[in-house]
Amino acid sequence: MDVPLPLAAPMRDIDADALIRAMGMSARAAAATLAMAPTAQKAEALTRAAALLRDRSADILAANAQDIARADASGMADAMRDRLRLDPARVEGIAAALEAVAALDDPVGRVIDASERPNGLKLSRVRVPLGVIGIIYESRPNVTADAGALALMAGNAAILRGGSEARASNAAIHTALADGIEAAGLPRDAVQMIPTSDRAAVGALLRARGLVDIIIPRGGKGLVARVQDEASVPVLAHLDGINHSFVHASADPAMAEAIVVNAKLRRTGVCGATETVLLDRGYPAAVALVTALLDAGCALRGDPEACALDPRIAPADATDWDTEYLDAICSVRVVDGLDGALAHIAAHASHHTDAIIAEDAVVAERFLAEVDSAIVMWNASTQFADGGEFGLGAEIGISTGRLHARGPVALEGLTTYKWVVRGTGQARP
Amino acid sequence: MDVPLPLAAPMRDIDADALIRAMGMSARAAAATLAMAPTAQKAEALTRAAALLRDRSADILAANAQDIARADASGMADAMRDRLRLDPARVEGIAAALEAVAALDDPVGRVIDASERPNGLKLSRVRVPLGVIGIIYESRPNVTADAGALALMAGNAAILRGGSEARASNAAIHTALADGIEAAGLPRDAVQMIPTSDRAAVGALLRARGLVDIIIPRGGKGLVARVQDEASVPVLAHLDGINHSFVHASADPAMAEAIVVNAKLRRTGVCGATETVLLDRGYPAAVALVTALLDAGCALRGDPEACALDPRIAPADATDWDTEYLDAICSVRVVDGLDGALAHIAAHASHHTDAIIAEDAVVAERFLAEVDSAIVMWNASTQFADGGEFGLGAEIGISTGRLHARGPVALEGLTTYKWVVRGTGQARP
Repeated sequence: MDVPLPLAAPMRDIDADALIRAMGMSARAAAATLAMAPTAQKAEALTRAAALLRDRSADILAANAQDIARADASGMADAMRDRLRLDPARVEGIAAALEAVAALDDPVGRVIDASERPNGLKLSRVRVPLGVIGIIYESRPNVTADAGALALMAGNAAILRGGSEARASNAAIHTALADGIEAAGLPRDAVQMIPTSDRAAVGALLRARGLVDIIIPRGGKGLVARVQDEASVPVLAHLDGINHSFVHASADPAMAEAIVVNAKLRRTGVCGATETVLLDRGYPAAVALVTALLDAGCALRGDPEACALDPRIAPADATDWDTEYLDAICSVRVVDGLDGALAHIAAHASHHTDAIIAEDAVVAERFLAEVDSAIVMWNASTQFADGGEFGLGAEIGISTGRLHARGPVALEGLTTYKWVVRGTGQARP
Repeated sequence: MDVPLPLAAPMRDIDADALIRAMGMSARAAAATLAMAPTAQKAEALTRAAALLRDRSADILAANAQDIARADASGMADAMRDRLRLDPARVEGIAAALEAVAALDDPVGRVIDASERPNGLKLSRVRVPLGVIGIIYESRPNVTADAGALALMAGNAAILRGGSEARASNAAIHTALADGIEAAGLPRDAVQMIPTSDRAAVGALLRARGLVDIIIPRGGKGLVARVQDEASVPVLAHLDGINHSFVHASADPAMAEAIVVNAKLRRTGVCGATETVLLDRGYPAAVALVTALLDAGCALRGDPEACALDPRIAPADATDWDTEYLDAICSVRVVDGLDGALAHIAAHASHHTDAIIAEDAVVAERFLAEVDSAIVMWNASTQFADGGEFGLGAEIGISTGRLHARGPVALEGLTTYKWVVRGTGQARP
């Protein structure tokens, strides 16, 4: 979505590595201060930023109008244009989200565990910030505030790189955030924004090992895959959400219908949406279930046995089982009990969120134990896959990787720990 | 250390990517079984392997003799030759280490935390294995057993790649381990060894994203740096241990002397050894401290103020503050109180282990809070930086990275978690 910059000349003459090095070093210095900052001071930075966003709502909307004008001139698709557009209610939502992050429990300093060794050494593991976080995102301007706030509240410095199509909106929101941080007595460089749309700066950020501790891409699959391919800095990534809802023979039909319709259709564009429904061959109310989905406006693509349930079901091809539709489309397959479901999920899941609907607790517990996904659910809608719904207060993303943090990631996932050892003069024999 | 293979033709004609793909797929299948294996079965695999190692001690020593003969022919340095050499006591040590790992607490299935949401959803985070672990190591044959056992006990499959100089010893030890695993009814492919010394296989392993979940390099700095540069699979790495012992003005002189001499000299080749001593300008017993180090056989390199303490102290140059000597050499610098020590450590530490010796608890707690290292210590020797000393029972390494696991890594660090959600029919509003 790189379009010509009408606001200022792009900094294509600047050395991208030098730019990122300078930003990384000031971020590292800011991170050292943030790591020691009291919870109240970090919270104050965010509540002050929220107040500034409200005060400057008109300016932010004017900046956004510039982005929208460029989007119109470039013929941007409606869905993307909608993600880009701000209005007074959305600005208020961004401000309120900052206040919500400010109210979260601060993980920094929390003791994970503690022990005393026979020689008297006292050990504890204490949560500390990760350090410097690079965040690369696409068109939604609210991510500037959300991601910056989450990084800061967990004691980290952040380097942001938003989509160039939102650059005026992002700059206005970022300025309010940085002003709020400064007003609270914290270093303005705690949250920086890369001041160029030159893609070379992204490459430099992805390779800034030692200056940047982790990269978090927020956006579509293309963005995430490109970041994973190019980065030498570790990446906390969210890839596909090819999620399954398995309806076991023992499922309560009314519950199964309510859960599956919700899991697929409540919002079709979210990563927690179900993409494949697996029907146990022994489930007696399969026709009613597919009818409910079809009647609710969902297109279905089935294996031959599923297609026999309703003439409106189109035949699935081999790619359907590996497709994240993010739309009112669902693949349906009839499987042979729990083992059939486990085999299908093992072969096709993206290890995001998978659910079983069953009254048989033994079967359900086997499903929960054996499905190797970040989130496994029993008798609940996969659409609950969300940091807010999990009580984390927010989320910076849902990790589909296996390392560091898995599933919804909020403040705790933006910290690491150190070992603190208190002795009384012990030397090692 | 690649030398011509006398035992068998190297498989240079095999496609390295195809080899690693085949190994990765069978490892993934084995990992699914291991993830569900009861603790007792995993422990049995290791105790059976220990018994086989003892039974086959003569065969293992004969294999080792082949490696040693090649080492002699190639003119291998004595230190490396010593790491490679096995004797009956060392084989017994390897067997005993397997039994020790078998006795460790199994982290798999452990509940990290649990909560209930207002809508009745019950959430918990449960430890699960990481999956497939690639382990790349150098000359010590015991790593074959140690690393394979730790991976397995945490429910993972492992793909091992040892140094080609130890290939006969590694093959003999690996066969015993795989036989033990099979005898306990677990898949033999749970611990595989790359059957070629072709370096292309290492490259393929490092890029096997999706097949291999994490790479753990165990060896010198050169190996680790090369792995970090080439890998697209996440790496759990141990880099330098440029560790500091800071002697504050309030330190008890007898304690400071005992701790510093131990921290530097107990074993100079370990990663927890102190490499730089920082002396507070206000510490009254500085002469006695450097005298103790010098008299114990340690060469000292100091800044001008430290050099003035004893004529035997050589002037340090700028590289000394960033050098991991792993030898009876120590850099010494006089600093201006806690802040001087913190500034030096921030500029030169490798974030491994740093210690303060002080009676002033306020100063010590500031040091523990502000030093950003995996391990921070108060009144104890940095040589305690070790999984065994920390009560972990073993260690696969000490992570100097910030993500996933930091400091000594044992079984828990070889797991991740999943979110388990139990509902009663909840759909998301």
